[in-house]
Amino acid sequence: MTLTVAQIATLVNGHVTGDPDTVITGISEIQSAQAGDLTFLGNPKYTKYLTQTRAAAVIVPSNFNIAATAALILVDNPIIAFGSMLAYFRPAPDRPAPGIDPTAVIAPDVHLGEDVVIGPLVVIEPDVCIGKGVIIGAQVFIGRGVRIGNDSTLDPHVTLYPQTQIGNRVHIYSGTVVGSDGFGFIRQKETIVKIPQTGRVIIDDEVEIGANCAIDRGTLGDTHIGQGTKIDNLVQIAHNVKIGPYCILAGQSGVAGSSSLEGGITVAGQVGISGHLHIGANAIIAAQSGVSKDEAPGTVVSGYPAQPHNDARKEIANIRSIPELRQRIKSIEDKLGIK
Amino acid sequence: MTLTVAQIATLVNGHVTGDPDTVITGISEIQSAQAGDLTFLGNPKYTKYLTQTRAAAVIVPSNFNIAATAALILVDNPIIAFGSMLAYFRPAPDRPAPGIDPTAVIAPDVHLGEDVVIGPLVVIEPDVCIGKGVIIGAQVFIGRGVRIGNDSTLDPHVTLYPQTQIGNRVHIYSGTVVGSDGFGFIRQKETIVKIPQTGRVIIDDEVEIGANCAIDRGTLGDTHIGQGTKIDNLVQIAHNVKIGPYCILAGQSGVAGSSSLEGGITVAGQVGISGHLHIGANAIIAAQSGVSKDEAPGTVVSGYPAQPHNDARKEIANIRSIPELRQRIKSIEDKLGIK
Amino acid sequence: MTLTVAQIATLVNGHVTGDPDTVITGISEIQSAQAGDLTFLGNPKYTKYLTQTRAAAVIVPSNFNIAATAALILVDNPIIAFGSMLAYFRPAPDRPAPGIDPTAVIAPDVHLGEDVVIGPLVVIEPDVCIGKGVIIGAQVFIGRGVRIGNDSTLDPHVTLYPQTQIGNRVHIYSGTVVGSDGFGFIRQKETIVKIPQTGRVIIDDEVEIGANCAIDRGTLGDTHIGQGTKIDNLVQIAHNVKIGPYCILAGQSGVAGSSSLEGGITVAGQVGISGHLHIGANAIIAAQSGVSKDEAPGTVVSGYPAQPHNDARKEIANIRSIPELRQRIKSIEDKLGIK
Repeated sequence: MTLTVAQIATLVNGHVTGDPDTVITGISEIQSAQAGDLTFLGNPKYTKYLTQTRAAAVIVPSNFNIAATAALILVDNPIIAFGSMLAYFRPAPDRPAPGIDPTAVIAPDVHLGEDVVIGPLVVIEPDVCIGKGVIIGAQVFIGRGVRIGNDSTLDPHVTLYPQTQIGNRVHIYSGTVVGSDGFGFIRQKETIVKIPQTGRVIIDDEVEIGANCAIDRGTLGDTHIGQGTKIDNLVQIAHNVKIGPYCILAGQSGVAGSSSLEGGITVAGQVGISGHLHIGANAIIAAQSGVSKDEAPGTVVSGYPAQPHNDARKEIANIRSIPELRQRIKSIEDKLGIK
Repeated sequence: MTLTVAQIATLVNGHVTGDPDTVITGISEIQSAQAGDLTFLGNPKYTKYLTQTRAAAVIVPSNFNIAATAALILVDNPIIAFGSMLAYFRPAPDRPAPGIDPTAVIAPDVHLGEDVVIGPLVVIEPDVCIGKGVIIGAQVFIGRGVRIGNDSTLDPHVTLYPQTQIGNRVHIYSGTVVGSDGFGFIRQKETIVKIPQTGRVIIDDEVEIGANCAIDRGTLGDTHIGQGTKIDNLVQIAHNVKIGPYCILAGQSGVAGSSSLEGGITVAGQVGISGHLHIGANAIIAAQSGVSKDEAPGTVVSGYPAQPHNDARKEIANIRSIPELRQRIKSIEDKLGIK
Repeated sequence: MTLTVAQIATLVNGHVTGDPDTVITGISEIQSAQAGDLTFLGNPKYTKYLTQTRAAAVIVPSNFNIAATAALILVDNPIIAFGSMLAYFRPAPDRPAPGIDPTAVIAPDVHLGEDVVIGPLVVIEPDVCIGKGVIIGAQVFIGRGVRIGNDSTLDPHVTLYPQTQIGNRVHIYSGTVVGSDGFGFIRQKETIVKIPQTGRVIIDDEVEIGANCAIDRGTLGDTHIGQGTKIDNLVQIAHNVKIGPYCILAGQSGVAGSSSLEGGITVAGQVGISGHLHIGANAIIAAQSGVSKDEAPGTVVSGYPAQPHNDARKEIANIRSIPELRQRIKSIEDKLGIK
């Protein structure tokens, strides 16, 4: 499994600086690369390693012009180029052979597509329909009436509550719970009344959901995750939330009930989005922000409460200028003989 | 399954504006209602849909006075009224038939009440006592010495550590872990010493706990969740915490060790409450607040660090007034010929 | 199971004030202690209980000089001393007898050390090696190629993805997922590209990880948790993160991708640490902080964005001084006849 730098450049649509015949035998991080390795520079913070690295070749941004002993492969997006070579040098493990583990507990009327893999100790309730090529990991629970499209994967210990609808090529990681009741409680005098949660969760094609997330069913309509959206670990998606296509939600973020996110939105880690809000397409919400009002398409917000990122930065600068303002007030007071 | 508007008004104790003989055949959200549907207006943000909705009737607040083509049913609390009609039009699925799945692994001395349901691949350790009408979902783990009252429900993949005590009509959603060790670690020189965690978790009647929560056992005494308290997903309750009756804790909130919350408290999403604090009855903690001191009964707090909500709002206004203050200082300096 | 105060003082290396022959028959919290009980004073907030307690003896700090009716045992660290007596009066439950539950699904080539305990409905994939004395709780999933050292414990419902490496005397609590894919997604035009996640998670000896955490595998190298580090519940450790020895990470905290923490660091609850950062040894990060830049060894930081704790405190004081500054500006304007 070796390639020359020239061959790699062709595969990733890049230009070579240095010896195109250099032979690449492995792949690694720039800090720990060994002779013969391919590596990449994805973040300017790591540029300092470039002069020390033992790597044979480094994938760098196309505007890169720092001299290096290693061969350089210049590309538009080094991380994506590196990712494609990673898939080459470290191929994914083989798909498990199709088959149903004899310890799985499967209701008689369940429909299983061709080439499905059902792991040990899985539970599948009645009226479930699973598409072809689906992989159900060990100890998964699939409730009554669930639908799963083709070529999706549920990792061990996933829970799908009844009526959950999963599209094609979806991947859900271990411990994630989809379709539990929304948090619909109303105070009434001294007690608390529960609003029934009768909707579903619908997850479109190519969605990926990390470990130990919680995605609640809708109250009446459905909670909906749009095509190609990627969700990290420990994320909370509340009832009736609508998330558009190709959003990214990072770890420990949460979206409260009935909010809707258009497509292409990026939500960083530990962000909270309040309920009944509308976030416009391609908005970017910085880490730990608390979003408490609607946001226009394309806005970049940060802070608590969240505001346009430039305003939030100015606000921090303003706060840090208070001692200087106090000093200027003091000087004026001194000049005027006040107090 | 149809009702007239007049019949519904009687059921929800409301008054009718419009035709009381209108026949209702379904139920839906105001944005997506079809002819014959009942819907509701629970949040003023959705008032704009009232003129467009195809719904046959809308449940509205009793002080509502906007004209609408649909029949209106005026009630004190539209959401609660709607919830009760939701239970009528979309009845909960039938309770599973009593019985013990043959794949469950149950210690011989376990006491099971009448009409219990034990799902497939459940594990129940010795010395456990489960009340009548309890439903144990698939793949649940119940540790040694656990007690569960009558008519409680554990959803698939719940974990109850040994000695956990669960009351009557409690509902715990999938992935939640109750009774793991509290985080009792003390630094000592270069290393870290663990304090044994020997208490239990006690959960009173009618508590509901969402998905993927973590509720730790007490160090010596017990962690305690009071009657009727409702907890959302991904919530952390640390060791020795005492939560009073009818509290509401929203998603991703956390209460640190040994803090006590009186009854009727509302904790919004992503709130953190530090350890060894006391929060008075009926306090309200706004989303993402960081509570670092005791709070009096009935207080409404927000911010980081949390303070009375009106103070927090004034503080934000003060911060946003800094540019104006700077300008006023500049004007004075100009007038005085400073710098 | 009784001891005299003098015997206890010897065991915890303390000095006695009061009657050394007092007999201790139990152990409890200071608020609820009964006659014959040993208790402790670990937090000055609880000093008020000292005059009311019915305890026979109280472990207190060595500089303690308040009169009490109970015997006092003065020690350097009351919590650690109390912890050791807690282990005496409330011994841990017996270790389960070695053996493999017949319902476990174990690949034929798995290597099991002496005296292992494998609970019911466990799944262990091929090429796994488990050391002596390991306890695998019910319903655990262990993926292909995993290595577990001696005397480690996995509680029920833990998930270890393939290739995870666990050291000796490690304890992982229920619901935690180790080794799921890192969140490696890059936007490219209208879509999102996934970077393969081919590294592992390596967990060193004596690490403890709470319930429902998520620890992602590395992209290329490994995610690494150093010896003796203790992690609370619902914590997120992203891909490629390196955590040094004897760190403490409290509940709901998160460390983003490729950040490295040296040894001895304390991370309080709900903290977020951004990606690609370096945190120096023994730093302390206060609750809910948002760390967005490198931190030097020994720094104490708080706030959002995090800054040195004294600066953060001054900043809060500065913000709260704005009304006073406004008033002083107004007085100057009045004196000068402005506006």
